[in-house]
Amino acid sequence: MSILFKNAKIITTEKGSMKVLENSYLGVDGKFIDYIGTQKPKKTYAEEIDMYDKILMPGIVNGHAHSAMNLLKGLGSDLPLQEWLENAVWPIEGKMRDQDFVSGMNMIILEMLASGTTSFSDMYFRPMITQKCIEESGIKADITRVLMGIGDDIDYATFPDRFESIEFHKNFDGAFDDRLHVDWCIHAEYTISEKIAAQWAEEIQKLGGRFHTHVSETKREHVGCIERHGKTPTKWLSDLGFFNLPSYAAHCVWCTDDDLRILKEKGVTIVHNPTSNMKLGSGFAPIQKALDMGINVSLGTDGSSSNNNVNMFEEMHLASIIHNGYTCDPTIMKPEAIIRMATLAGALEQGRKDTGTLEVGKKADIIAINTDAPHMVPDYDTLALVVYSAQASDVCMTMVDGKILYKNGEYLTMDRDKVFHDYMASHKYLSAFAK
Amino acid sequence: MSILFKNAKIITTEKGSMKVLENSYLGVDGKFIDYIGTQKPKKTYAEEIDMYDKILMPGIVNGHAHSAMNLLKGLGSDLPLQEWLENAVWPIEGKMRDQDFVSGMNMIILEMLASGTTSFSDMYFRPMITQKCIEESGIKADITRVLMGIGDDIDYATFPDRFESIEFHKNFDGAFDDRLHVDWCIHAEYTISEKIAAQWAEEIQKLGGRFHTHVSETKREHVGCIERHGKTPTKWLSDLGFFNLPSYAAHCVWCTDDDLRILKEKGVTIVHNPTSNMKLGSGFAPIQKALDMGINVSLGTDGSSSNNNVNMFEEMHLASIIHNGYTCDPTIMKPEAIIRMATLAGALEQGRKDTGTLEVGKKADIIAINTDAPHMVPDYDTLALVVYSAQASDVCMTMVDGKILYKNGEYLTMDRDKVFHDYMASHKYLSAFAK
Repeated sequence: MSILFKNAKIITTEKGSMKVLENSYLGVDGKFIDYIGTQKPKKTYAEEIDMYDKILMPGIVNGHAHSAMNLLKGLGSDLPLQEWLENAVWPIEGKMRDQDFVSGMNMIILEMLASGTTSFSDMYFRPMITQKCIEESGIKADITRVLMGIGDDIDYATFPDRFESIEFHKNFDGAFDDRLHVDWCIHAEYTISEKIAAQWAEEIQKLGGRFHTHVSETKREHVGCIERHGKTPTKWLSDLGFFNLPSYAAHCVWCTDDDLRILKEKGVTIVHNPTSNMKLGSGFAPIQKALDMGINVSLGTDGSSSNNNVNMFEEMHLASIIHNGYTCDPTIMKPEAIIRMATLAGALEQGRKDTGTLEVGKKADIIAINTDAPHMVPDYDTLALVVYSAQASDVCMTMVDGKILYKNGEYLTMDRDKVFHDYMASHKYLSAFAK
Repeated sequence: MSILFKNAKIITTEKGSMKVLENSYLGVDGKFIDYIGTQKPKKTYAEEIDMYDKILMPGIVNGHAHSAMNLLKGLGSDLPLQEWLENAVWPIEGKMRDQDFVSGMNMIILEMLASGTTSFSDMYFRPMITQKCIEESGIKADITRVLMGIGDDIDYATFPDRFESIEFHKNFDGAFDDRLHVDWCIHAEYTISEKIAAQWAEEIQKLGGRFHTHVSETKREHVGCIERHGKTPTKWLSDLGFFNLPSYAAHCVWCTDDDLRILKEKGVTIVHNPTSNMKLGSGFAPIQKALDMGINVSLGTDGSSSNNNVNMFEEMHLASIIHNGYTCDPTIMKPEAIIRMATLAGALEQGRKDTGTLEVGKKADIIAINTDAPHMVPDYDTLALVVYSAQASDVCMTMVDGKILYKNGEYLTMDRDKVFHDYMASHKYLSAFAK
């Protein structure tokens, strides 16, 4: 199958910098982009799609999510974190059945595809069950089975989180033509004993793969780790060897300059989650500093129960403005850096060097943004328009690996009605346990 | 004309608190709400509209805007404020013709109606020209002719900003069945001489009306005022007598506790503009403190050239989370307070006691929000859903004074194609002057 997009405004990348082509052409053959230019290509494509009034940009990567937690969103709004977890989240989460993980995951994928997300990094339970949602929908994902191990009574040899993680990795890493990556994880320093963590770090380094974790999200976690271990979460993770794997660390709100130097040296990606950091009162991550140091910074929503959606346009917007407010400097966090965070940096986080930009030879992970709307005129600066003016609802097409999965409100690989039906059944079942 | 909305989720107000009615009815007769209840009313309405899966809430009031500046949005993104104004904005603004103010205003009204805004407070030029956009569209507005007067050579007797303001007020305050209010203004302390300001304050107190200004938006302005006058902008305005009129003050980012006490004592509304304050690096306004003191705090977008849209759902979202992040306290800025800021507080700012809530006897300024979307499920907490999950694009109906102005993408009082045509003509003309 080959498709030629014509009359498009295209955010392409040349020599590492974004460039906007007006009224241009982008050709897709199979899974790959095979043409970008201002002139119509000589080659004939099976289908031509008019993208007049549309911006084509790379698909968005949600760098940190807890998918099926969308079933819990809105519960215990505005409670302090611990109270929210203990009284609102955990009592219901413990009741979730396999089908609830599936219905939550499918609903998240509907939301992601409609809002331009072509890949996401997920940390949650029952990945052996939810992997089929990735297979069927056509989206990309790096999924990890959340691993927690507090308590001295855990026997590493029979630790179920470990077995499930390894089993999942063995069976599904690279599945579905590499759309699914299975990464390793510990939830966070404060939810695992050092003894278990050390054994796990040693084992996964031998197995190889990528590592996903939470780092210094709250001051309490950061300071608590120093009290527990005499070092910051970053140093603790690094010393245990986790960062010898390609790694991505969610939040990093309270990371020190020394922490940032470790992350830079180890090539760790920071996943910035601005909505979550604001809403939960976690604080302002040192993102401009990390960017200035050359650290790869991607962007994520965190779980939609603490967000409360998976709208990456909201994250781009927040990332672009809150740091200006915090530092009283309007010149930082430029639109190009923000778009890079939401696209290429996320692809690199996931070890996907074949996507993240619109360039010939890259995988065709592409979204189209409609500009025929009052809030999208005029266009003096297309990158600024995407970051400051655009809404997730302006996304009118989402393509992954050359296949259109979403177009003008229609899902081409998913049964929207069935997903809603199953989701509402899960919601009905779970809401009975809500306090 | 009478309309009955049925099967709706309704955010109504009882004894000053918001309450959500499920599966309920709201009747509109003429300009007013004449029924709200869970039972079908006995009265027969001319039309019944099914609002299954929809939330009805009060129309949103944008408390501070500079409408036609949308023609300049995206120009000079991320420049420091002064450089942005001097090099990007002013050279073009000076070239705007009457028709450009009209095309900019009409485009803003399209954007506002599609995103649930039923009234706005505007400070800009040529109100005698743009008032017809208010008349024709059916939206409500408090408009003021921006008034600036720096320089000792200004002769108050022949000062054109003054004459235009008074002429506009005389001819149009209360026009269009009170949809248009004409308010008084000075742009800000730093753009007017004290001599002119004192005469103006005296004159408008005699004329009566409402007063709109910028207060302590930036640290530079706040500190500069203390240097110039030995007092803060709030104290300076208060001492000159401006706040003896019902007043609303945009930004108040750098207001001191003493300033807040003055604003409280004088009954001044603070208009919070979170996107603008973040994007321009102005800082964090003391909003929770103001709310705790009982100050009326409304919400605004500021000009869409420094936003870059007039999306009040974005403002609600930001207002609800950035202060949590800044204070590291997730329990402040509750959803009900945020919705009140965006609705009732704005109505009170504009002196419109007959709107701002959904209650029997109030004007029917109502919007409907679609919840049949992946990001809008589940609904454990409707107020939280509106603030944290909803998008402006979920607005599917906007009614002002009992008249539907926007429904499912269609404008009932405006010619969308003509507005776009005229706007693009203005844009083409103006962009020739862009550097």
